[in-house]
Amino acid sequence: MNKHAIFHLPDSAYAFALSENRLCLRLRAARGDIRECLIFYGDRANHRAKMAAVTMKLVASDRLFDYFEADFTVDISRICYYFWLSDGNEDVYYYSGEFTLSPADDRNRYFQFPYIRREDIVSVPEWAKKTIIYQVFPDSFATGKRYISGKGSVRTAPCGAPCESRLGGALRGIIENLDYINDLGVNCIYLNPIFTAGSYHKYDTIDYFSIDPCFGTMEDFRELVASCHKMGIRVILDGVFNHCGWNFFAFRDVCEKGKASAYKDWFYRLEFPVDTENLNYAAFAYVRQMPKLNTGNPEVVEYLCNVGRFWIREAGIDGWRLDVANEVNHDFWRAFRRAVKAENPETFLIAEVWEDAEQWLYGDQFDSAMNYRFAEVCRAFFPKNGISVDEFDNRLGYMRMRYKSPVTKVQMNLLDSHDVPRFLHFCDRDIRRLKLAALFQMCWEGIPSILAGDEKGITGSTEEEYRQAMVWEDSPQSAELTAFYKKIITIRKDYIDEFAGGVKTVLKDNGKGIYAFSRYSNEREIIVVLNNSDNKQPVSIPCRTGNQEVTDLLNGTILSSKDGIIKLTLGPVSGAVLAGM
Amino acid sequence: MNKHAIFHLPDSAYAFALSENRLCLRLRAARGDIRECLIFYGDRANHRAKMAAVTMKLVASDRLFDYFEADFTVDISRICYYFWLSDGNEDVYYYSGEFTLSPADDRNRYFQFPYIRREDIVSVPEWAKKTIIYQVFPDSFATGKRYISGKGSVRTAPCGAPCESRLGGALRGIIENLDYINDLGVNCIYLNPIFTAGSYHKYDTIDYFSIDPCFGTMEDFRELVASCHKMGIRVILDGVFNHCGWNFFAFRDVCEKGKASAYKDWFYRLEFPVDTENLNYAAFAYVRQMPKLNTGNPEVVEYLCNVGRFWIREAGIDGWRLDVANEVNHDFWRAFRRAVKAENPETFLIAEVWEDAEQWLYGDQFDSAMNYRFAEVCRAFFPKNGISVDEFDNRLGYMRMRYKSPVTKVQMNLLDSHDVPRFLHFCDRDIRRLKLAALFQMCWEGIPSILAGDEKGITGSTEEEYRQAMVWEDSPQSAELTAFYKKIITIRKDYIDEFAGGVKTVLKDNGKGIYAFSRYSNEREIIVVLNNSDNKQPVSIPCRTGNQEVTDLLNGTILSSKDGIIKLTLGPVSGAVLAGM
Repeated sequence: MNKHAIFHLPDSAYAFALSENRLCLRLRAARGDIRECLIFYGDRANHRAKMAAVTMKLVASDRLFDYFEADFTVDISRICYYFWLSDGNEDVYYYSGEFTLSPADDRNRYFQFPYIRREDIVSVPEWAKKTIIYQVFPDSFATGKRYISGKGSVRTAPCGAPCESRLGGALRGIIENLDYINDLGVNCIYLNPIFTAGSYHKYDTIDYFSIDPCFGTMEDFRELVASCHKMGIRVILDGVFNHCGWNFFAFRDVCEKGKASAYKDWFYRLEFPVDTENLNYAAFAYVRQMPKLNTGNPEVVEYLCNVGRFWIREAGIDGWRLDVANEVNHDFWRAFRRAVKAENPETFLIAEVWEDAEQWLYGDQFDSAMNYRFAEVCRAFFPKNGISVDEFDNRLGYMRMRYKSPVTKVQMNLLDSHDVPRFLHFCDRDIRRLKLAALFQMCWEGIPSILAGDEKGITGSTEEEYRQAMVWEDSPQSAELTAFYKKIITIRKDYIDEFAGGVKTVLKDNGKGIYAFSRYSNEREIIVVLNNSDNKQPVSIPCRTGNQEVTDLLNGTILSSKDGIIKLTLGPVSGAVLAGM
Repeated sequence: MNKHAIFHLPDSAYAFALSENRLCLRLRAARGDIRECLIFYGDRANHRAKMAAVTMKLVASDRLFDYFEADFTVDISRICYYFWLSDGNEDVYYYSGEFTLSPADDRNRYFQFPYIRREDIVSVPEWAKKTIIYQVFPDSFATGKRYISGKGSVRTAPCGAPCESRLGGALRGIIENLDYINDLGVNCIYLNPIFTAGSYHKYDTIDYFSIDPCFGTMEDFRELVASCHKMGIRVILDGVFNHCGWNFFAFRDVCEKGKASAYKDWFYRLEFPVDTENLNYAAFAYVRQMPKLNTGNPEVVEYLCNVGRFWIREAGIDGWRLDVANEVNHDFWRAFRRAVKAENPETFLIAEVWEDAEQWLYGDQFDSAMNYRFAEVCRAFFPKNGISVDEFDNRLGYMRMRYKSPVTKVQMNLLDSHDVPRFLHFCDRDIRRLKLAALFQMCWEGIPSILAGDEKGITGSTEEEYRQAMVWEDSPQSAELTAFYKKIITIRKDYIDEFAGGVKTVLKDNGKGIYAFSRYSNEREIIVVLNNSDNKQPVSIPCRTGNQEVTDLLNGTILSSKDGIIKLTLGPVSGAVLAGM
């Protein structure tokens, strides 16, 4: 047995409660090493009560490791547990740093789940589990109905500072195209920043309480949210709290008044007199226009929590995407969470964290994070077969086991955002590959997020290109792509229980480039088959019962299984979504 | 290379800041596998800046793993990093889930230390690093000067509920024996609960704002704290906030008024009408007299935070030991920390957590925990040589790497507490073994904590025995033991810089039962040698320079090194503390 590989950590993604009487425990072991794995658990407050056994299942694998999981009901609150592992040759008991031939008498030495503390149970908004996000970068989207002027402007903020735009997008444009968005089928819009700010991207906030004059007015925004809600579309705003713009009132004040300013402690590592040329203060990415806020100062915390509450209360927004979350202290985010959830417990909180984000996703700060790892894995697999089917599955397995399952189910899975080259760019404009990746995204675990324009075939690798103006006039190709997006969004929504349910790898064929996985809930199952090769491929998919009919939801084809096998043929770079299993 | 064994986790005990410009990074690998280990780190906000290299040192080992560490200065705040590892045959780069032959171009794929967020830097009270705790269980300690009546009493709380004592100990008794405590040399008293409560142990609080009538008055307590502070002795109280006693006013109210009570949401899983016979509420360890408080209710949080603040403000206490910390939700402890640290930032917070306590010791909740793992390791080694010297060192290595180093340095290392059989009991009353363990405890990393009476040779395995009355009349044996404690406490205090500094294993001899380790700070070093065998043992200790004189601080013997070796002979079950290295 490879004992070096075995890993478990209490009170983490390896041990968490799903409810007051349901636990999920996980164990990592070397790939292919462990044949059988049991949990024994018992009451840590009653040493005479018997220990019960639960079988763990192999639920995911990556390059090096297998992950075992058990998700089971308990009728006690204080739990101690240990594992029993067998590789066929050797059997061991495993608990807190020890491998032994028989369990210790002393329950204190086992792993402990000290109490299923209900306040510590991860809870994400119910609606988030059924969401498909459409990301809109306001400047790039629309000036009016199916129209964008392409012309920027310079307006003046109430404080006198200039606010600029580049392409003429505005809230009015979004409102007038809500029918388009609704028709696409998405049920949530994530808007990049819309508060008064200097640059066209609006990440240098001047005023957290007003709409940028280039984008419109508070009334426009209220109308936008109200119209969205009527259509069942949620609205998520972008909160930039790591830093502000240098025309933010408090920063202007410290520049003018120096140490005498009432806001002298509002900025991180600010020295006096403030020197915006030589930057004697912390700033986002060394950009002097974006001074870093001192989120350790209770006044700043209170101010920004008020911003969080204001837009929920005054405009009814449904969530916040929080910019540069990983450069801000944990306690700020805990305070922010408390504040906004007190205003509306169903507020959805997404962190911008590009790397693995364990520390932000324990459940006390964010509900979700922008899953750039998802984009990386897809970029490695779909555009040019940069990795094998096996490796694709490995990376997905690693991703699936990183966080507690309620969090994984609402990760914001993106192919594109306003900060990276368009996925189509990596595909050398091969639309088939974008479609296959989008199909995967729509069928995988987590929230699919589409950057506006992806469905129109917008591409490009520079900031100017990937933030280019929305394409409102269709070509035959863009119309076909949009229709495909509508189709896969419909499938996601029609079978949301399955797509919000479990995941299981069904088939991996490196030679053929075929990957198939199952999404399931209760007795219903969907099998998604992807052909990532440039060749037509015959595929045999095992199914549960001997003979049955299944439908490929992408094209309505009905297929019959025989002796528990469904045979189908997939065209080059294409997929199938089989329902009726 | 055993890649399964390699482990690193950002924002954990494997990656933390020691200050705004000092980082500590750790990596775990299979024992004996890695010969060389480097960190390359660079600016994640400036992709053109060069990556710098730092050599990691092997700092600890346990049965399966080696732990490498580097503690280095940085002049940037946003850091990305990867490791370079060599086992002599194979060289690999390691970052976020990947082993590669050359580092990726994309810094986003490395491990990230997104920002050295100063608010997230672990900070423990400076005084705690130099503390030696004396734990006093009030009922058992003293009625008056060098005297305990041995007689309990029953008094009446203001609410009419009975409060009982068993052996007659009182605050007055502690005050009258402060000269004894001071003479022993300890500089901190941890008192088990003293607030008005039903049972003699006072873990069933009736009133969080008053002194138990069996123990004395508020004036007594103020006098105790003031007298302690005059002597340079700190005072830590025991806070029982997981549960209260059933005569706590709010619980009485819900019993009387049922659902109409203003306190109906103050208790965990309380049903109505309250049934104290059949227990229709959560209770500590199923004890009906101890209803679990609902620490998810903001009113309860506020109430208990007020308790925390009250005793700091009104009586000047220096810290809280928090009972059953692991059954209370994390956010409660964060709120409690904020509250008491706002009252006095130097308040020291110790959690009662018997198992590994990562989740409580990130720095956002407690400063320290009662280190029962320390007691276990000592119990396994000293009393009966239950484990080898190697295994002793393994378990210590595991313990040392569990938490961020500032936390490890203030762990409350105990041999005894009011909740376990006396250490001497496990030694079959062999005082030599207790002395050797106490010497180890006093010289090891962390805060030594002595349970009153240990220095008098009190023993026993039942609650009645280990909480027995303090022995105030000395026998020759107890006097000699007390003198030994004084000696080792003096050594700890005289060389506090070394004992608050680093740790290094110097010698492990399984055959002879010899274990030696170094404690060091800057250029000064202490070497502690333990002979855990029943035989006289000659020992050779390597020292830094060729020829020098060292002193065994335990008996003043001067020893000379020759050719970098100090030779000494240790009697059975005894130790030496060599200074002047």
